[in-house]
Amino acid sequence: MKPLLTPAEFEDRLRAIGAERYHSLHPFHRLLHGGNLDKGQVQAWALNRYCYQAAIPRKDLTLMSRMDDRELRRAWAHRVAEHDGLGDNPGGIERWLILTDGLGLARADVMSMHLALPATRFAVEAYVRFVGERSILEGIASSLTELFAPAIHKARIAGMLASYDFIGDTVMQYFRRRLEEAPKDVGFALDYVKDRARTPDRQQAVLDAVRFKCDVLWAQLDALHFAYVEPGLPPPGAFIPDDRQ
Amino acid sequence: MKPLLTPAEFEDRLRAIGAERYHSLHPFHRLLHGGNLDKGQVQAWALNRYCYQAAIPRKDLTLMSRMDDRELRRAWAHRVAEHDGLGDNPGGIERWLILTDGLGLARADVMSMHLALPATRFAVEAYVRFVGERSILEGIASSLTELFAPAIHKARIAGMLASYDFIGDTVMQYFRRRLEEAPKDVGFALDYVKDRARTPDRQQAVLDAVRFKCDVLWAQLDALHFAYVEPGLPPPGAFIPDDRQ
Repeated sequence: MKPLLTPAEFEDRLRAIGAERYHSLHPFHRLLHGGNLDKGQVQAWALNRYCYQAAIPRKDLTLMSRMDDRELRRAWAHRVAEHDGLGDNPGGIERWLILTDGLGLARADVMSMHLALPATRFAVEAYVRFVGERSILEGIASSLTELFAPAIHKARIAGMLASYDFIGDTVMQYFRRRLEEAPKDVGFALDYVKDRARTPDRQQAVLDAVRFKCDVLWAQLDALHFAYVEPGLPPPGAFIPDDRQ
Repeated sequence: MKPLLTPAEFEDRLRAIGAERYHSLHPFHRLLHGGNLDKGQVQAWALNRYCYQAAIPRKDLTLMSRMDDRELRRAWAHRVAEHDGLGDNPGGIERWLILTDGLGLARADVMSMHLALPATRFAVEAYVRFVGERSILEGIASSLTELFAPAIHKARIAGMLASYDFIGDTVMQYFRRRLEEAPKDVGFALDYVKDRARTPDRQQAVLDAVRFKCDVLWAQLDALHFAYVEPGLPPPGAFIPDDRQ
């Protein structure tokens, strides 16, 4: 039988998943942040990652649509506004489009998603389905990869600005903003799972949900790496950088 | 073959559904607004209607979770905040609870919904499922009963304040607020369906969705009338007013 972890042990186990499985460890990210990709490869990354960004509000709305607890919905609602925008805030999806604009991609190509890798979209939709089908606890737990995000965003801002002459400060605003938002978001979710996962089975379900989410992120980079780095074989219909057409 | 209606004809047909089927026509509402119910019957109405109020954000979130169009999600998002509350606005559900407080019902009894009629909950969940399964156009169309709501809210405020000594101004704030919100909400939805329903089949789907929604509202009053007015047979486990226990 699995032991019940103390809250501190449980949080340590959650954080250990990041140290083992978060996509900051993927070779594609080492290349991206180290300045070792060409512009076409960075375009491919931004164009595919748009699919993920664009799905996040649907993911949060799917989860919220299943919450019977009004207080919980209220605590979660700002996430949708952060991504879709609200009032003067254009939102994270718009900020991602500023990045793809800056990389010279046409918005119609990015937003239609028709040049994205099928594997990207499969992984993204698996995430939306996960929060629609699993328990609310697991759905909330799957957001906890935000625990690991600030480090990768800092490395990305510094590395990409230093390394690529086609990346300027304006286009990196998505990541600067997430450095402010993600720590606030993750504090609520971490407290929630620590409070609610009071049996060994529920603790295990939370840990599995975080691993699942790491898989969703990692699979997107595997597909990019395969298509655009090594061996570099984009599937039929996928984005081809200008200099390879 | 069905003809394609002009936008004006189409709007006339939509409004005609209200004149035939909106729950303002139900005998229970005539009794409620005319001061012909006793306090226990008004309690039963408010306690059951809470199930509907509490489900509206899940309904809107379910619909939004399926919208690929960010602009459409942004246009719909304020509905959730209106019901769940946001910042200083406690929201429509809280305002409904102020009504049930004023009627002397315990919040735990109202919010747990365990005293509500099963038929109420079946009708409410049918509405949530409808927007999860039908087209976005039909989901948006199903909100169009708001076209008919201001008249019933005005009649309700005037009739209930004049008729019942156990109803004061404070507890009617839900309806006053909806008099401001609903016309703004429905303008967007009406424009949307007029713009998007450009084939006879799509026009028919919109009309059917509004009829479905009228059925959802009507069925709730049928169940109340049967249980608490005539013949007055609450099903096992349902709310029983104090003076009949």
